[in-house]
Amino acid sequence: MSNVIAALVTALGADVVRTGGNIPARNHADAGGQVPVPPDALLLPRNTDEVSTCLRICHSFACPVVPQGGMTGLAGGAHPRHGEIALSLERLVGIEEVDVESGTLTALAGTPLATIQAAAENANLMCGIDLGARGTCTIGGNVATNAGGNQVLRYGMTRRNVLGLEVVLPDGQVLRSLNKMLKNNAGYDWTQLFIGSEGTLGIITRVVVALYPRPRGIQSALCGVASFSDALAVLRRFDALMPGRLLVFEAMWREYMEVATGQFGLAQPFEDGFELTLLLEAAMGDDPSGEEAFAETLASFMEDGTLPTAIIARSENDRRRFWSYREANYEFGRVLPKGSHFDVSIPLGRMSDAVALLREGVAAQWPDAIPIVFGHIADSNIHIAVYKPGFDDMIGQAINEVVYGIVAEVGGSVSAEHGIGVLKRPYLPLSRSPSELAFMRSIKQAVDPLNILNRGRILPESDRSNVTSILSAPAPAIIG
Amino acid sequence: MSNVIAALVTALGADVVRTGGNIPARNHADAGGQVPVPPDALLLPRNTDEVSTCLRICHSFACPVVPQGGMTGLAGGAHPRHGEIALSLERLVGIEEVDVESGTLTALAGTPLATIQAAAENANLMCGIDLGARGTCTIGGNVATNAGGNQVLRYGMTRRNVLGLEVVLPDGQVLRSLNKMLKNNAGYDWTQLFIGSEGTLGIITRVVVALYPRPRGIQSALCGVASFSDALAVLRRFDALMPGRLLVFEAMWREYMEVATGQFGLAQPFEDGFELTLLLEAAMGDDPSGEEAFAETLASFMEDGTLPTAIIARSENDRRRFWSYREANYEFGRVLPKGSHFDVSIPLGRMSDAVALLREGVAAQWPDAIPIVFGHIADSNIHIAVYKPGFDDMIGQAINEVVYGIVAEVGGSVSAEHGIGVLKRPYLPLSRSPSELAFMRSIKQAVDPLNILNRGRILPESDRSNVTSILSAPAPAIIG
Repeated sequence: MSNVIAALVTALGADVVRTGGNIPARNHADAGGQVPVPPDALLLPRNTDEVSTCLRICHSFACPVVPQGGMTGLAGGAHPRHGEIALSLERLVGIEEVDVESGTLTALAGTPLATIQAAAENANLMCGIDLGARGTCTIGGNVATNAGGNQVLRYGMTRRNVLGLEVVLPDGQVLRSLNKMLKNNAGYDWTQLFIGSEGTLGIITRVVVALYPRPRGIQSALCGVASFSDALAVLRRFDALMPGRLLVFEAMWREYMEVATGQFGLAQPFEDGFELTLLLEAAMGDDPSGEEAFAETLASFMEDGTLPTAIIARSENDRRRFWSYREANYEFGRVLPKGSHFDVSIPLGRMSDAVALLREGVAAQWPDAIPIVFGHIADSNIHIAVYKPGFDDMIGQAINEVVYGIVAEVGGSVSAEHGIGVLKRPYLPLSRSPSELAFMRSIKQAVDPLNILNRGRILPESDRSNVTSILSAPAPAIIG
Repeated sequence: MSNVIAALVTALGADVVRTGGNIPARNHADAGGQVPVPPDALLLPRNTDEVSTCLRICHSFACPVVPQGGMTGLAGGAHPRHGEIALSLERLVGIEEVDVESGTLTALAGTPLATIQAAAENANLMCGIDLGARGTCTIGGNVATNAGGNQVLRYGMTRRNVLGLEVVLPDGQVLRSLNKMLKNNAGYDWTQLFIGSEGTLGIITRVVVALYPRPRGIQSALCGVASFSDALAVLRRFDALMPGRLLVFEAMWREYMEVATGQFGLAQPFEDGFELTLLLEAAMGDDPSGEEAFAETLASFMEDGTLPTAIIARSENDRRRFWSYREANYEFGRVLPKGSHFDVSIPLGRMSDAVALLREGVAAQWPDAIPIVFGHIADSNIHIAVYKPGFDDMIGQAINEVVYGIVAEVGGSVSAEHGIGVLKRPYLPLSRSPSELAFMRSIKQAVDPLNILNRGRILPESDRSNVTSILSAPAPAIIG
């Protein structure tokens, strides 16, 4: 290890190559909750060329590298492992261009998402990507994990928002396609391979995202419905009547609202409890007729019985109050015992079955546990939490088995938007066949034959004996 | 070659393996205009297992295979080359499922797009993919070429509409992810690699597409504008005022309308001629207020001078009349001399420059030539045609150089939606760097190391001497 670090210092200087006590604690851990691990070195390249030099040298020593962005990932993808060098994109920060005519923004990968959102808004446009970690997460990390978030219903996952990328390959080669065009069928769209690859195939250094007109006249409603199929009917009918208007369609199941209004202390929004409470937002435009159309549409659903009740926000204050239910889960930990948390996708046709199986499965093994379900149901994405008095690792493991077992049974995905990293790796075979996993390995092998980039994330680590022998061999010459 | 055909007949029977006069003329040529070439054999597998058997056997003989769908491609991707076996998906036809709850449709790859559109409509939903060849082209071909078409502005390219795929790899292995969920970050989304790969990486056998609510209350207008930047202003402002409503935004430049109303004989739509004529359609909903809002929005653009003139369709007849301008180009060949045709993307900020350069470049070399420009400008996609009296191959080549030279100069793409195939292969380096092309080759090498699938499409053929030696060597044993 000392050889590779010496070579890095020689090429890039001690300002770029930090070791020991000069590595800040923030680079020891991501938000996945694992025990912090200091990397053997921290690389802080200042531009794409330096990223390339870093990887070229690490590659020549077959030294494993963990790329780091905003460190907000929940699957352990950016969390260092022993013997790894961390490469942080934190100095590659800045908006390079806002092209209003093309409706695109080009930024360096380490730029925080919130900075990109602000730059888009300054041009009276908006960025289609938004998630809770917006102030800390980076656009490069968003792309590397194909981040989801709050606007997927309207603007899609990060993949749909990316038009161009610059990527440094494991051996230091730079691939660049800073495309701004919606249509470009000039050969393989290689950028797709890196979106959602969680830093295992290349390090993203620049991103071109599409920008959109800012939604105007946002109307919000909090609604109660008797069943998941009624929730789906509201979603489909609203979208059919007012295509492209829905921005948000969030659901909270009964137990969620019981905790939010019971232990957590928010006011009961409705007189009755409902199987699901929905938070619904639509962009109705500047015209006051949009506000009326929103209210009339909801009223028509109430008349025909699909929607037992709905409250429409009459002020920004109301709107914040509605969101306080949806965001309360971030603090449920304060009022509930410890528990396990899940980000999964379920085909919409199996969602009711999945929730019923969860309730039964949890009640059968842990009568005192509280199963919480909420999420972006229009995207088939729910978050599950199972809080359990006396929670420990063994219980956590047993809860994992119950939840992922249900996901596998209904043909869901063990990761909707958080990725696989290391923490979900054991469960990946529940959502992917042996052929799919073998194909993923063959892609990894083709792009990163020495397996230096984010080794052991997504795919199991291959036999290390070979790698160890490379590492303990004399240092190869550095090319270039 | 006789060895591989004998092995195929033994495994699959003469009904699946056709040779000589039993190969219909339709399998000798695609729509790219090359001289027809009968393939050495035509394989007509009836299901995924038989596709797998076909490829396993061809792979064991390193025999090149050209996959065929609806044969409507314009880049020569499905056109047989000497010594190839064609594999047509024409028997893999059928809708397997319309899942209204999930909003998805699962179909076999050989299903014509129009059949899929009809099945979606029967469920009161719609398919997001639409193109002129809908009656003949197949969903597998749409995915393999990442087809664009008429609805990209609202529903995106085919890539955005695909949720799941089943693919047979060159060695006969079957990869399957019939995903119905909008969010699924469980490892690499390997399906992305096959979308737009033009049959060079695998043969698509099943497709899951997203379905959408049917747009209602479609309003159409034909407008004249003085400049491209005014056209863009109309697009952006309409989309900002009524997000998600625009379905169609097609542009025809001055020379196009002169041919349409002159040689082709359509009525002049406006008293004056305009730099651009726009065909604009929006889904305004069932409510009669939508019709008013559409008219008022256009009127407001006329008041402030962005839009000199607009005619709104008051009947389906009017609407068909508007479309007759946009579709006239299909028959321009009847009234104009021969010419060259192009499908390219141009960054929106460089579109005016590109058209000006085209006019200058053509006028300078061929004063009697007519440069026609039209297309889906919201997607940065234009089609160019240069008609020239006395057109021949040498002039065609010179026109190619002018047009692709301009595309390269303004940072455009040599293929917007038609793909590369063989016909555009010489121009691919104008839109892709050597590193990008090398990376594409490494992906091709990893997935299809014997280079049996659609050899020579997209990427140049590698040295054939090695391949020939494999082909002339004794037949290897067939596994399984």
